[in-house]
Amino acid sequence: MTERNIAIEAAERTAVEDQAVEIVERKGIGHPDSISDGIAESVSRALSNLYLDRVGKVLHYNTDETQLVAGESAPQYGGGEIIEPIYLLIVGRATKEYDGRRLPVDATAIGAARDYLNEHIPELEVGTDVIVDVRLGEGSGDLQDVFGEDGADIPMSNDTSFGVGHAPLTETEEIVLSVEQELNGAYADTHPELGPDVKVMGKREGDHIDITVAAAMVDAYIADLEEYDDAVESVRDHAAAVARDLTDRDVAVDVNTADDYEEGSVYLTVTGTSAEMGDDGSVGRGNRANGLITPNRPMSMEATSGKNPVNHIGKIYNLLSTDIAESVVEEVDGIRDLQVRLLSQIGRPIDQPHIADAKVVTDPDADLATLEPEIRAIVDDRLANVTDITRRVIDGELTTF
Amino acid sequence: MTERNIAIEAAERTAVEDQAVEIVERKGIGHPDSISDGIAESVSRALSNLYLDRVGKVLHYNTDETQLVAGESAPQYGGGEIIEPIYLLIVGRATKEYDGRRLPVDATAIGAARDYLNEHIPELEVGTDVIVDVRLGEGSGDLQDVFGEDGADIPMSNDTSFGVGHAPLTETEEIVLSVEQELNGAYADTHPELGPDVKVMGKREGDHIDITVAAAMVDAYIADLEEYDDAVESVRDHAAAVARDLTDRDVAVDVNTADDYEEGSVYLTVTGTSAEMGDDGSVGRGNRANGLITPNRPMSMEATSGKNPVNHIGKIYNLLSTDIAESVVEEVDGIRDLQVRLLSQIGRPIDQPHIADAKVVTDPDADLATLEPEIRAIVDDRLANVTDITRRVIDGELTTF
Amino acid sequence: MTERNIAIEAAERTAVEDQAVEIVERKGIGHPDSISDGIAESVSRALSNLYLDRVGKVLHYNTDETQLVAGESAPQYGGGEIIEPIYLLIVGRATKEYDGRRLPVDATAIGAARDYLNEHIPELEVGTDVIVDVRLGEGSGDLQDVFGEDGADIPMSNDTSFGVGHAPLTETEEIVLSVEQELNGAYADTHPELGPDVKVMGKREGDHIDITVAAAMVDAYIADLEEYDDAVESVRDHAAAVARDLTDRDVAVDVNTADDYEEGSVYLTVTGTSAEMGDDGSVGRGNRANGLITPNRPMSMEATSGKNPVNHIGKIYNLLSTDIAESVVEEVDGIRDLQVRLLSQIGRPIDQPHIADAKVVTDPDADLATLEPEIRAIVDDRLANVTDITRRVIDGELTTF
Amino acid sequence: MTERNIAIEAAERTAVEDQAVEIVERKGIGHPDSISDGIAESVSRALSNLYLDRVGKVLHYNTDETQLVAGESAPQYGGGEIIEPIYLLIVGRATKEYDGRRLPVDATAIGAARDYLNEHIPELEVGTDVIVDVRLGEGSGDLQDVFGEDGADIPMSNDTSFGVGHAPLTETEEIVLSVEQELNGAYADTHPELGPDVKVMGKREGDHIDITVAAAMVDAYIADLEEYDDAVESVRDHAAAVARDLTDRDVAVDVNTADDYEEGSVYLTVTGTSAEMGDDGSVGRGNRANGLITPNRPMSMEATSGKNPVNHIGKIYNLLSTDIAESVVEEVDGIRDLQVRLLSQIGRPIDQPHIADAKVVTDPDADLATLEPEIRAIVDDRLANVTDITRRVIDGELTTF
Repeated sequence: MTERNIAIEAAERTAVEDQAVEIVERKGIGHPDSISDGIAESVSRALSNLYLDRVGKVLHYNTDETQLVAGESAPQYGGGEIIEPIYLLIVGRATKEYDGRRLPVDATAIGAARDYLNEHIPELEVGTDVIVDVRLGEGSGDLQDVFGEDGADIPMSNDTSFGVGHAPLTETEEIVLSVEQELNGAYADTHPELGPDVKVMGKREGDHIDITVAAAMVDAYIADLEEYDDAVESVRDHAAAVARDLTDRDVAVDVNTADDYEEGSVYLTVTGTSAEMGDDGSVGRGNRANGLITPNRPMSMEATSGKNPVNHIGKIYNLLSTDIAESVVEEVDGIRDLQVRLLSQIGRPIDQPHIADAKVVTDPDADLATLEPEIRAIVDDRLANVTDITRRVIDGELTTF
Repeated sequence: MTERNIAIEAAERTAVEDQAVEIVERKGIGHPDSISDGIAESVSRALSNLYLDRVGKVLHYNTDETQLVAGESAPQYGGGEIIEPIYLLIVGRATKEYDGRRLPVDATAIGAARDYLNEHIPELEVGTDVIVDVRLGEGSGDLQDVFGEDGADIPMSNDTSFGVGHAPLTETEEIVLSVEQELNGAYADTHPELGPDVKVMGKREGDHIDITVAAAMVDAYIADLEEYDDAVESVRDHAAAVARDLTDRDVAVDVNTADDYEEGSVYLTVTGTSAEMGDDGSVGRGNRANGLITPNRPMSMEATSGKNPVNHIGKIYNLLSTDIAESVVEEVDGIRDLQVRLLSQIGRPIDQPHIADAKVVTDPDADLATLEPEIRAIVDDRLANVTDITRRVIDGELTTF
Repeated sequence: MTERNIAIEAAERTAVEDQAVEIVERKGIGHPDSISDGIAESVSRALSNLYLDRVGKVLHYNTDETQLVAGESAPQYGGGEIIEPIYLLIVGRATKEYDGRRLPVDATAIGAARDYLNEHIPELEVGTDVIVDVRLGEGSGDLQDVFGEDGADIPMSNDTSFGVGHAPLTETEEIVLSVEQELNGAYADTHPELGPDVKVMGKREGDHIDITVAAAMVDAYIADLEEYDDAVESVRDHAAAVARDLTDRDVAVDVNTADDYEEGSVYLTVTGTSAEMGDDGSVGRGNRANGLITPNRPMSMEATSGKNPVNHIGKIYNLLSTDIAESVVEEVDGIRDLQVRLLSQIGRPIDQPHIADAKVVTDPDADLATLEPEIRAIVDDRLANVTDITRRVIDGELTTF
Repeated sequence: MTERNIAIEAAERTAVEDQAVEIVERKGIGHPDSISDGIAESVSRALSNLYLDRVGKVLHYNTDETQLVAGESAPQYGGGEIIEPIYLLIVGRATKEYDGRRLPVDATAIGAARDYLNEHIPELEVGTDVIVDVRLGEGSGDLQDVFGEDGADIPMSNDTSFGVGHAPLTETEEIVLSVEQELNGAYADTHPELGPDVKVMGKREGDHIDITVAAAMVDAYIADLEEYDDAVESVRDHAAAVARDLTDRDVAVDVNTADDYEEGSVYLTVTGTSAEMGDDGSVGRGNRANGLITPNRPMSMEATSGKNPVNHIGKIYNLLSTDIAESVVEEVDGIRDLQVRLLSQIGRPIDQPHIADAKVVTDPDADLATLEPEIRAIVDDRLANVTDITRRVIDGELTTF
């Protein structure tokens, strides 16, 4: 076996943590783009499992283009109503027949979307508040060939593409991620008035961090403007507490800054997502594979959600590069900022990238030359086990947005 | 008030009961055309009630064009699966804004369709087995004007149209109607293997009546061909019993005549309707307002289901003519066959039809001249109370298919 | 070969021509229901020809459910505009793959619809004024089997269904048909202001015939109300002239009776069809196979347009019964009114109907017993050559609406 | 007026031109994602012009979510065929009524899409090869207010968002951009066999540049594999010539590397875009506002195409930051690499960004302190004239992808 083309080098830049200005964003699970991502990925997992269950291997499909067309609503304190439902179109292609047997591809996709929405956007009743439709083509001839027949085989790359991952997260990144996850996690469990459409923007200038949260409130649980204001205040307090646990820097938190109490214009919704009233969404327009939008760092434009995890190199390399970066930082001491980039080449096995380059900013007291062999070993090992990514995606262990 | 133009005359033909050959058909509640009719009418009722509730009067709408695009399924003994869901498009137009307030027209339509399906085709899960979509336009300017402001006012006719009704039902008609209603009623309650897509065709030649039933069986409740055959036999026995209670004529019943046991080709479904596997449906293509298709009798081509019951003259006159015919036969003795026809004229009050004509075949011992005043009085009275039809439609007391 | 079950008998009723009241209607070629019929049938013919061309025989399909969702327009004298395009969904199922080769079914359907609209509703620009979409399923397994392999073979009936035809047309029927055809033919060629959505209603009471025409005017060719009034007057004159050529009875013609000149409310359109502003349409809701809606006569509810002409018994028998009735009346003297009815039986060859019955009203001086052998011979002959119907439908020689 | 918050500082990194590995990509005008971008932006321009024409100011709209669902085709040498058309759904919301007058929003959107496709993807016949559908909602109440009433007024920012621009392009970027533009420009004019779906990937390692072109060939202009091979060779030669004019570095060009001549698997299409056979597309997934995907540089995830150019801050700032960077580099000598970033703040005038920061890598012999005042002046001036961006977008002077 040929040696892998792995380059470990010093990043000729400042660590993001040390840059003067840093911007970070996370679109929460109920944001229209995230809903699209979530459905695309849940449909993808369901199809992988359908194929494994029925055929013993994953067949050709890609479902990375879910389009959400916003609805119209009339929220009001105590409970408003949906005027026009959201329309959600699952787009892509999938193998619908194998060995003369028709496979329930469309029904599986619709079912997966429904289950996903029921679990994550529970206030949104499928079939009433949101119409889920599907247009899955058969795909072009060549691509319908079977692949991944045997887990031990390494697929060939289907495209020239690249993935990029980073670790560790900066404080601002950690805060943005955690604030959303906490609010949509434990906090929401006891605060039903908070909808899942929580968008968090972090901006750091030097040692001052501004966190701006846009949080859709659910009208049924809020009686009036006073209760609304309490709910906003409570979100602010909780976000601030989460943030302060993660940094010693100066943190300011703003929630729903576009509200205008005098005009009675507040962020009130019927279902907890702005998709109900004018915000469309689509796959790959929101968070990158690590859950964040990080303009201070190189990002791939590739949509990760909904792609076939067996042979879609863009998906695999984005997830793998993130996984490698996190593993390296966990296992190797002395790294302040790490960027891992994988570039594929059509027709080569995917464990043999055209280039795998790691750009390292070490801690002041660390020496890259010393760390280099350890880093290389991890990169090499992870590449050798690239098919683990596929398995973990199918099992739902890896998130894509 | 001017006298109404009512003509009572002898029908210059044989009573249908006495004709040599008679054909009658009923598409049961689960037939794709009937599903379309049922949804169109339930949407119409829901919109009428929405408008009454919010605005105090019914506004402009028509929802008489629901289109059902069949799905694909793979039934099998013990329970098969849906491959591709049914797609159901609610089409029409409705007033979406009144007095500056947006009305939840689309959401109400979707909700009504869902409730209807849940109640009548329970095996068909909305949002998974069937996608319900909606395209309701705003309609053209003039027609959006409010009407029916005051129940005591008689609306003007919006079209030149006509309606036709008959009574009494012939024995063959009674049998066809009752067989479907019994099978989809008490029988289905205790026989979950029988789906709601029951189509009944009756053919009478002289005194011999052939009843042909096509009955969709639900696979989850049928273990094998033997149980299927038992289920078919049981439907046949029940249908025959119903028929024999209604006639002294010779009756033969066939069920699922297209089955071919040797080839294993039987009428097995996952959800109890052929809409799941290739049979499209639309409004107004099935039963007429009296629940039957009766080629021996004049019929209106007008779709009754989904039309606005306040001002749609085709709907009102079809229901009213049927209602008049039934009332006359109930109240006046000596009528063997009665046809009532109402012809509207644009711009005239709907209680003043251009012509109302009743064609009567009397019993051998009855005399039309004697009956004529009674009949005329009933026709006149029902026309005077034409708005009762609107109310009864909105309350769901009148069926349209 | 067994003898066919043909019954020739006296109709126990008055000829329609002699009944006291007669109602007849024709929806012109530009009416929304007729547009749906026309597209469904043109798609059907295109698919038949595609299959014949590529495979040598017609494969399974049915495209009898085109749904037209009306648009919105703002007509004005001298030329208005479309606000929202019409949406037209071609629905049905068709065999998309044969012998491992994909057939351009969807593209053929779309192309046929486009060609049809370009030819018949030329003011309606496809892709701008009207969106043509398509949802054609694969259909259920069994039905995809090939049929009609050899023109000499008689297919088996696929359903219990019936068709009914009449001849000759009454004067009122002739007038209604001719007025529409003339207006949409030679007249429209020299009067571009007349759109194809011409609806003609005829009502005869005794010897007085009222013809009511609703004619959509095209705004680009009409400068003001005065020109509009001239256009209406011209249509009235032309219709009256056509009518008077066909009858000696008293004829009155009204055009666009719903107009209200004082309120400026007239029947002005941008494209010549009411589909542009609120009138939805679907297949099988308008004219029967003979081009008319005739409530004085038994009619089949079966949609003829779009059905597969090789094996769809409802389509074949409606066209055949009409063809037989016309042939008999043309070849046999002394018939005042003839109704031919064909009833199929599942599984029997379609040239062997369960019953073929002809109900005859003879001229006063004719004797049915004398005519009977001639009539029987024609019925028998046409049944023997039933597959001619299929060929003539595919060649576009027979109209279906 | 307050001073603008402008920060000019040294970039603490190597110029991209000097980094060891550089990756650049451009999706050509016929790529499914670019088709979506192009239609979204052309619809946006058409709506802006519609509003200016009818109302005198731009009203609320956003049309940045066009979804392309791929079709299916059967290309073959000499000319193949489309099997299933592409489906293209224009998604967004727009003000449909103003001052009681309905505006032709849907018709304008459809028309703009059609015109765009006719001009840029001429082999793709709208209405036959591609179905263009539209779902534009009314949007939520507040946002429908009028804005931009007076050109001299600076709108307030509607969101917290940022834009980022770069200049000058590196050699690799120049090459990737030029190769696509040349191929889709002069070259295509004389080589009809080259379709507009040309994707160019550039990878530079040190001083070696690999250019990989994926070029969809149009089958009607290619007789056989030999001609195909000639066409590929000709594209390679042309691309290589373009590249060599722009660099002294070592350049290698590959075209259609996934082809397998032995298996007869080549990149042949009927219409010149892979959208015809399995590649879906959506807005904002391809090129950034400067026409490139540049993972070596910070990028905004914001979709620029289709957004409202009057008040959508993400669109304006992405275009403005690119414009500023280009202007600075053009007017100021000594800059090797410049990144301009603009961060908005909700509720502040858009000419007053929260931060405008410029990160500069100077030429070895230049001094940032000397250049700083010039740079600042340009940034300040462009911000002061921010509304120029809006005008230039509406006039079609600025490209967005």
